[in-house]
This record gives sequence, structure tokens and C-alpha cells, in this order.
Amino acid sequence: MTKNALKQRVFDVISKAEEGDRASRAFDLTVMALILLSVAMIVLESFADLAARFGTLFSVCEAIIAAVFTAEYALCIWTADLLYPGEEHPWRKYVLSPMALVDLLAIAPFYLPMLGIRFLRTLRLLRLFRLLRVFKLHRYFDALQIVVDVLRSSASQLIISIFLCLFVMLFSAIVMYTVENPVQPEQFPNVIASLWWAICTLTTVGYGDVYPVTAVGRLFASVISLVGIGIIAIPTGIIAAGFSTAINERGRRRDEDARLYCPYCGRRLGK
Amino acid sequence: MTKNALKQRVFDVISKAEEGDRASRAFDLTVMALILLSVAMIVLESFADLAARFGTLFSVCEAIIAAVFTAEYALCIWTADLLYPGEEHPWRKYVLSPMALVDLLAIAPFYLPMLGIRFLRTLRLLRLFRLLRVFKLHRYFDALQIVVDVLRSSASQLIISIFLCLFVMLFSAIVMYTVENPVQPEQFPNVIASLWWAICTLTTVGYGDVYPVTAVGRLFASVISLVGIGIIAIPTGIIAAGFSTAINERGRRRDEDARLYCPYCGRRLGK
Amino acid sequence: MTKNALKQRVFDVISKAEEGDRASRAFDLTVMALILLSVAMIVLESFADLAARFGTLFSVCEAIIAAVFTAEYALCIWTADLLYPGEEHPWRKYVLSPMALVDLLAIAPFYLPMLGIRFLRTLRLLRLFRLLRVFKLHRYFDALQIVVDVLRSSASQLIISIFLCLFVMLFSAIVMYTVENPVQPEQFPNVIASLWWAICTLTTVGYGDVYPVTAVGRLFASVISLVGIGIIAIPTGIIAAGFSTAINERGRRRDEDARLYCPYCGRRLGK
Amino acid sequence: MTKNALKQRVFDVISKAEEGDRASRAFDLTVMALILLSVAMIVLESFADLAARFGTLFSVCEAIIAAVFTAEYALCIWTADLLYPGEEHPWRKYVLSPMALVDLLAIAPFYLPMLGIRFLRTLRLLRLFRLLRVFKLHRYFDALQIVVDVLRSSASQLIISIFLCLFVMLFSAIVMYTVENPVQPEQFPNVIASLWWAICTLTTVGYGDVYPVTAVGRLFASVISLVGIGIIAIPTGIIAAGFSTAINERGRRRDEDARLYCPYCGRRLGK
Repeated sequence: MTKNALKQRVFDVISKAEEGDRASRAFDLTVMALILLSVAMIVLESFADLAARFGTLFSVCEAIIAAVFTAEYALCIWTADLLYPGEEHPWRKYVLSPMALVDLLAIAPFYLPMLGIRFLRTLRLLRLFRLLRVFKLHRYFDALQIVVDVLRSSASQLIISIFLCLFVMLFSAIVMYTVENPVQPEQFPNVIASLWWAICTLTTVGYGDVYPVTAVGRLFASVISLVGIGIIAIPTGIIAAGFSTAINERGRRRDEDARLYCPYCGRRLGK
Repeated sequence: MTKNALKQRVFDVISKAEEGDRASRAFDLTVMALILLSVAMIVLESFADLAARFGTLFSVCEAIIAAVFTAEYALCIWTADLLYPGEEHPWRKYVLSPMALVDLLAIAPFYLPMLGIRFLRTLRLLRLFRLLRVFKLHRYFDALQIVVDVLRSSASQLIISIFLCLFVMLFSAIVMYTVENPVQPEQFPNVIASLWWAICTLTTVGYGDVYPVTAVGRLFASVISLVGIGIIAIPTGIIAAGFSTAINERGRRRDEDARLYCPYCGRRLGK
Repeated sequence: MTKNALKQRVFDVISKAEEGDRASRAFDLTVMALILLSVAMIVLESFADLAARFGTLFSVCEAIIAAVFTAEYALCIWTADLLYPGEEHPWRKYVLSPMALVDLLAIAPFYLPMLGIRFLRTLRLLRLFRLLRVFKLHRYFDALQIVVDVLRSSASQLIISIFLCLFVMLFSAIVMYTVENPVQPEQFPNVIASLWWAICTLTTVGYGDVYPVTAVGRLFASVISLVGIGIIAIPTGIIAAGFSTAINERGRRRDEDARLYCPYCGRRLGK
Repeated sequence: MTKNALKQRVFDVISKAEEGDRASRAFDLTVMALILLSVAMIVLESFADLAARFGTLFSVCEAIIAAVFTAEYALCIWTADLLYPGEEHPWRKYVLSPMALVDLLAIAPFYLPMLGIRFLRTLRLLRLFRLLRVFKLHRYFDALQIVVDVLRSSASQLIISIFLCLFVMLFSAIVMYTVENPVQPEQFPNVIASLWWAICTLTTVGYGDVYPVTAVGRLFASVISLVGIGIIAIPTGIIAAGFSTAINERGRRRDEDARLYCPYCGRRLGK
């Protein structure tokens, strides 16, 4: 087997599996299993007793997973010229692609402690990037594209509705602080604490750890709760309209060829 | 009455009632009453004092209900050749139909203890299948079809939005565990417990049994609550768009007769 | 002034005010003020100290309000032949109209104690019908018609989604009772108590008075919370689609005359 | 530089920045920074320790911010004739414009204590108007216009749905008071307290500070919770339909050039 044929074979295997390509399929399943194992380990490590008993096992698994994904990352760079044929710097293009950056961030936490940076708490937070590996699954779901498209096309309206939401939250936090602080100084010590109440209320989560007790506070909270319905209704409405438009658009495109011309007289129809 | 005429009569009775067929109508009402009685009994049996006083009555009712539905199941198999005329193995086709499998699962819990399997806790869980009988009611509601169609047609997008939702939940559970575990070790002992918080928050249920108390935790919970609005908005938007399309589609089909012909040459259009 | 002219004048006054008719406008404002006063009194009577101090005042006000609305009801019957011209039994038609039945129910609670029926608790509940008077306001809002139309046109789908919702609630109540009853017998004593939890969770209210504590219970509650998003999304989607269709329908009707024909060559356009 | 040229320059600077106008851009960024600083200070002042240590600094900042916005307000009045060319009383028109009223209200709280009105609590509430300055940001977001248009076009339906919502809230508050008051007199002392429960439940916030404990109360609360889903679904549906229509309208307008002409005779269509 020549070097080029080997490279082509490797590229086929690490790319999305085609029908009948057993090695490629096995590779994909292994990757998915390792992602799930990696996620499961983050969860299991958090149990103090499991961490104490199986700590070494977890470390070994982590090393193996990191090694596999590092190897895959290296192979992807090697075969980048097959992914982007005719590109001058194919591996540079690959390394800077969003997918590859996510892959790199997902591997990074494993190597960072080796660089001498051993701040434990920070490291544990960095490990969260490992979760981004899960996003690899999105290669397999085309429907995600529609969801992303809808969110992107209505992004400016969504941002404005989030801005309105934040304004209402800050406004109601300051009002509630002014009203409730003298009565419950330990529950509403400052505007930030009051903001916690405002967010819990406007998103209708309502933990019940902080709530108004004065008549004025309750009246205001009632009005804000009703506004909260609107705050939720606006982004829902924007997203619903986005999906409605996207689905109609697809349907229209499908029907367009068949409807634009009368198939008998050949004339273009009005619509 | 010949055997065939009897069979035809039985089939008519156990099928959906036609206008004026009194026996068939009475049968349908009896079945519906038994379903409601069966459901009511599950609820009533859970009251310790009622179970103690009316235990025997409940057992007798249960036996009668199981007998009726077993008889109906048998009659359905017998008349399967009238339901699927021209089929080679009509009763096999009936037994494997989703409706018949639901019926079988609904009868099964009654007979299982007779097979010697008497693990009490398991048996109580198996009884839940009886609830599936309720689904028999769906023969009577055509509108359910639209709801099911909409959910099916937008299934892939709904699955993706559930996937995104689970990703956000796991991500926020791990962040919150890292932030809150040192301060409230008994409330956030591990990632699974933290996941319970994340689900309560993102679905905006907000029981209030677990909530962050640190500043960083509250800041993060605030961001996650806002994301939660989006998490709810996406499936709502998808389903709303689906219903909108379904209703328009029905309206378009109704109008189609007027549109099927080219208004200029008068010929029937292809589609 | 002849009797007929007087009747016509009375009818004009008690009907919806026309531009420039001062007496009619004054009547409408009086009625609205009495409705608001009547509602305010229900609220104020509930304060023990106010009821003790102003009890007599409340009774007098109530008598006056009841008298005014009784008189209005009588006048409406008297002028019913002007409301339904050409009808054989105009007052009978008026009395059986939904609006008049609501009016009658709103007056009834005042006269019932005079009939010797003085069960105090029941009477207090009957007074709730007085609230229905508020509905008189809907004569002034045409937009209510659209809301009602949308709810009516999507009624069958909404009923099915409520049915699905109740099924999921009952199902999850029984599962949760089975799982949590042995651990928290006082919180989940029977299926009805468990149903209270299920409703609080699926509607995302989440009071936090009852919640699962076992691992299995929490896992199941998590799944049910996610299903809850769908349970809310389905009616929202149905209603959104209904409004979308209603608004488009109105727009289409308005545009139809202008678009059906090319105004120059006179031919019917394709669409 | 003549007075007119200076005035024109000032007007250009305080108006929205055009591409390449550095002074205008710098002015806009300064204004935005002062708005954010102003909001941040409201939050920081609420911390008792920060208010004690940096009280003087806060006062100085507040004075500077008030001075800048007062100057801007004065300059806007001066250049009003350039904003409304050909208007007889341009500065009067400016002063009465909604934007200018908001600006005035945002400056007012600073000058009010100088007028001798020093009721401290009131003054703190008046400071809330400062938040309105944030709305100045909306000059920079065009998407807000769509959100406002949608809310305005569906205003009458939204008002009706809020009215229905308030009716249901009042109704359920009175029922719940009647049912729960004898059992929990301290939780449901009067209809207003009961209304607090009703609002928390119908908006699905569910703090959990007040909830029914009687069987009848829970049954009623369950029904009301389900109604609450509808109460939220109606405004969401209205807004979703509004956005759907607005987006389609924009799309239709874009397509209109292609449709404005009759495809057969080639003449421009009326609409």
C-alpha cells in the first residue's frame, strides 16, 4: 500500500462512515463510546467515594481517551489536504475551523497540568471543555442546522428581547430592593440580591428562597409576574415565527418547479 | 343464525359503533365505563384504609374487568379475518398490531401473579400498564391524529432540541457542582444531585429544595434561567410551526379543487 | 312622550352608547362603576376588620347594586321587542340568551337568602357569580371575539392535548406514588396526593411542598419535567397556529377583491 | 466658524453617528459609557459598605453625569430647528416628543432635592427614572422596531387576554379564600392575600410560600394550574402569530417587485 493510498484510507475511516465501510463505522462507534465514557467519568468522579476507590482507573481511562482524541486530531491535520483539496495551506485551514478548535479545547485540559499549571480548582473548571466533545455528535444530526438557522435569522430580535428582559429585571430589582430592604434586610441586602429574586420571578422559576412580604412588594411582584409571561412569550413568538417561516420556505422551494408553469399550455402561472 | 352471520354480528358489535346499532353502542359504553372504573380502582387502592376495607371488592372488580377484556381480546382474534379480509394469517396480523399489543399489555398484569411470579413491588409497577387501556379512548378522537402527525413531522427537530437541552443541563450541573459543592456539600454532593437542580431550573419548575447560595453560583444560575426560557421556546416554536403548517395544509387541500385546473386553458394541472 | 317613544328612548339608553348620546353614556359609566364597586366589595368584605366596621355599609351598597341590576334586567325584558324586531316571543328569546342568563346568575345570589335558604358557606360561594357581571365589559371589546373564535376553532385539538396531559399526570402520579410512598409516606400517602405533585410539576408551578427524594423518584421527576415542557408547548403551539391562521385569513379576505382579477386585462389571476 | 455652522456641527455630533464622523462617534460612546456607569452606580450604592466608603465619589459621579445629560438636553433644544426643519416651534415640538420627556425624567431626580424636597424614601424611588436613560440605547437597535410593531399591532388582543387573565385570577382568589381561609387563616387571611397565591400559581412562578392544603383547595388549584397553561399560551400565541405575520409581510414586500406586474398583459397591477 503506497503512502497516498494509506492516507486516503485513513481519511475515509476518520470521516463520516459510508454505507458498507466497516472500519470507518467501527471508528465512529468507538469515538462516540469514548465521548459518552468521558462524560460519564466527569459525573462519576464527583462522587467522593467513587473518586477514592476508582481514582487510578479514572486517571487511566482519561489518559487513554485523551490519547485517542490527540491521535485523531493529528490524523485530521495529516489528511487535511484531502478534506480541503486545492487549498494552499490545508492543515492551517483545518486547525482554524470551528470544529477543530472545539476538538483542541476538548483535549487541552488533559495536557495543561503537564505544563506545570496545577491550580486544582481552575483545572476542574477547564475539564468542562471536555463536554464540548459531545458536540461531535452533531455531525450526525442534520436537523440541528434548521434550529441553528432559525436562531441565527432571528438573532437580532432575540437579542433585543433579551435586552428588554434584562432592563425589566434590573428595574424590578431596584424597585423591590427599595420596597423590601427596610422590612427584610437579610433577604434583600442590596440590588444584586434583589436581582436574584427578579430573575427567579421573571423566568417563572420561583425557588421560593426570596419573596416579598410587604403589601407594596407583593403588588409590584404580581405586576412583574404578569410582565414575566410577556417576557417569555416574546422570544417564544420570535422562534415560533422563525420555524414557521423556515418550514414554509422549504415547502415552497419543493413545490416551486411543479407550480411555476402550467404543464400543458406552458404559460407561467400568476403565483 | 349461521356461524358466519354470528361472527359478522360479533365483529360489528366490538368494532366502533355505527349510527343506530344499539348493541354495538352499549358494548362501547360498557368498555369505556370499565376503563374508567379500572383507572379509578388504581387510585382508590392506594388509600391504605380503603384497601383494607374494600380489598375483596377491588379484587372481584379487577377479576371481572380482566375477564371482559380477555374475552374481547379473544373475540378480536376470532373475527380478525373480517378486519383484515384477504389476509393469509389475519389473527397473526391482529396480534402484532400496535393496538392489540397495548390490549395484551393491559390484560397481562392480572395473569402474571397466577404464573407464580409474586414479587409484590414489581407487580404494582406492572399494574401501570393497565393505564394503557385508557388509550383505547383514542379510537373516538380524530383530532389526536393531527397532534400525533405534527409531533411526528417535527420529530427530528424536537429530538435535537431535547439533545441541546440535555447538553445545557449536564453542562450547568457540572459548573454548579464545581461552584457550590465546597459551600453546600450536603445540597450539591455530586454531579447527579446538581443535575436535579439543573433540570428543576431549566424546566422552570423550581421546587426550591436546592438552590445556589454563592455569588458565582447565583450569577451562573441567572444566566442558566435565561437560557431556560430559550430551551422552552425552541420546542414550543417547533410545535407551533408544525400546527401552523398542518392547518394551512388542510386549508390548501380544501381549496385545491378550485386550483387544480389551469385557469386559462382549463386543463387539469399535473399536481 | 308616547309610550312607544319612551320605550325606544329607554332601549337607546340601556344599549351600547352611541356618539353624542349623553344619557346612554352616563348609564354605561354608572353600570361599569357599580360592577367595579361590586367586585371591590367582595374583596373588602374578606378583611375581618373591615367586615366588622363597615358591615352595614356593605349590605346597603349590595342592596343598591342588586336593585339597579334587577331594574336593568326588567327594562331589558320590557324592550326586548326592540332588540329582536319581528320575533314572536322577544322577551323569551332575551331571557334565554347567554348574556341574560349571566345577568340573572349575577343578580340571583342577592335574592336567594330571602327565599329562606341561609346556608352561609354556600351563599358565600354563590356570590362568586356576581363576578360574572364583569363579563358585561366584553360588550366593549371586539377583540375578545377573535380570541374566542381561535379557542373554538382549535377546541378539539386543545381537548385532546388536555386529555394527553391528564393521562401523563395520572401515569406519573401512580409511578411516583409507587416509588416515593415507602420513603416519604406522609408526603405521598396515596395516588391523589401524588397527583398534586404531578400537576405542580407538569404545569411547572413547582411550589416545593412535595418533591421526590429517592434517586429513582428524582430520575423519573426529571423525565416528567422535560415532558412537561412538551405538555405546555402543545396547547401553546395550537393556539399560536390558530391566531396565525385567523390573522392571515382576515388579511387575505381584505386583499381578495384587489387581487382576484387583473384590473387592466380583467382576467382572473392564477392565485 | 459661523454660528449656523457651529450649530450644524453640534447637531451632527449629538445625532446618531455617521460613518467616519469621529467626534460624533466619541460623543455616542461617552453617552453610552455614562449610562452604564449611572446604572452601575444605582446597583453599587445599594451595598451598605460601599455607600459608606465611596459615598462622596458616587455623589461626584452623579453630579457629572447629570451635568452632561443636562447639557445634552439643552443642546438638543438649541438645535431642534435642524431636527424639525420648517416647523414653527421646533423646540416646543422637541420638548414634547416622547424621547425628550424620557430624557427630562431621567435628569429630574438629580435636581429635585435642590428644590427643597428632601423626603428621602421618595427620592430613592424617583432615582429609578434614571434607568430610563438606558432606553437611549434603542436608537442603536433597529430590530426593536419590529418587536414594538408586533406588540402594538396585537395590542387589543393582548389587552383582552390580560383582562381574561385578571378575571381568572380574581375568581380563583375568591374561591381559594372561601375554601382555605377556615383551615389556614394566617396564610389566606383575605382575598388580597389569596390573590397573591393566584398570581403566583397562574404565572407558574410558584414560590411555595402559600399553597392549599385542603382536598377541595388542591383540586381547585389543580384545575387553575391547568388553566394557567392556557393563560400563558394565549399571549404567546398572539405574539407568535404577530411575528409570523410581520416576517411574512417583509418577505412579501421583498418579492413584490416580481409580482407587481400582471404576467399576461405586462401592466403594473393596482396594489
